[in-house]
Amino acid sequence: MQVSEFLKHSRQQLVTCLPDNSLASVARLMYTHGIGAIPVCEPGARMVGIISERDLVRAFARTDLSELQYLRARDLMTTRVVTCRSDESMRAAQDLMRVNHCRHLPIVESGLVKGMLSLRDTLALRLQESEDEMNFLRDAVLAARH
Amino acid sequence: MQVSEFLKHSRQQLVTCLPDNSLASVARLMYTHGIGAIPVCEPGARMVGIISERDLVRAFARTDLSELQYLRARDLMTTRVVTCRSDESMRAAQDLMRVNHCRHLPIVESGLVKGMLSLRDTLALRLQESEDEMNFLRDAVLAARH
Repeated sequence: MQVSEFLKHSRQQLVTCLPDNSLASVARLMYTHGIGAIPVCEPGARMVGIISERDLVRAFARTDLSELQYLRARDLMTTRVVTCRSDESMRAAQDLMRVNHCRHLPIVESGLVKGMLSLRDTLALRLQESEDEMNFLRDAVLAARH
Repeated sequence: MQVSEFLKHSRQQLVTCLPDNSLASVARLMYTHGIGAIPVCEPGARMVGIISERDLVRAFARTDLSELQYLRARDLMTTRVVTCRSDESMRAAQDLMRVNHCRHLPIVESGLVKGMLSLRDTLALRLQESEDEMNFLRDAVLAARH
């Protein structure tokens, strides 16, 4: 399955934040939408990074509570973001996440984010696909025996 | 595969926290060990809840920053925890997470936590198992043709 097809079926609502967003507003976006990572985009929509639940937890772990109010998305985001195109396969997307040890992958076209994939998405889909193929193969084995 | 077997192979180090732990110390445990959820256990080791990255993000989203210092693990943890036993199958563990919409599952024996399973663990394992079975079935189809 292509990434574009998956995005279409998942009816995902793309949520982004600005580099100047406070940590509290990023946390509210994640919590309200039930998502684990958000692309950080400049007002012109160009992606400049990605910020995840884990980045917030790191800030919590390392920063004096009184300093947290001064932190912005730009201070915590990962700027070297691994991305993939929507015409790539879900298998390729999963391999990208595996090789780069990341759990979220922005789908980018001409510098603009089109959606987000999570490792859980790709694992669940591949599991479904391999179970479908397994049923097909089981039928084939049975048919070959008769 | 049984949950106990998976835990043995994964060489997981069990991390727990106390109900009175501050949010910063819970965040440090999660960040240091790279884990998304921690069982909250009383000094006698009995589990009283579970606290996740998402719970910390929720606190961040909803609480005044100046109030965060007063919050403890007991204030944010989920107390109605779905658990499973180590003699259950990984498949049953995954079904439990799916049905209850949770991503982490403490493995509990006689009230004591023995380990943690994540939805990602179970998905990845089932994918591996179904790909192994698929290879076996493909060979069987080929053999039946010759």
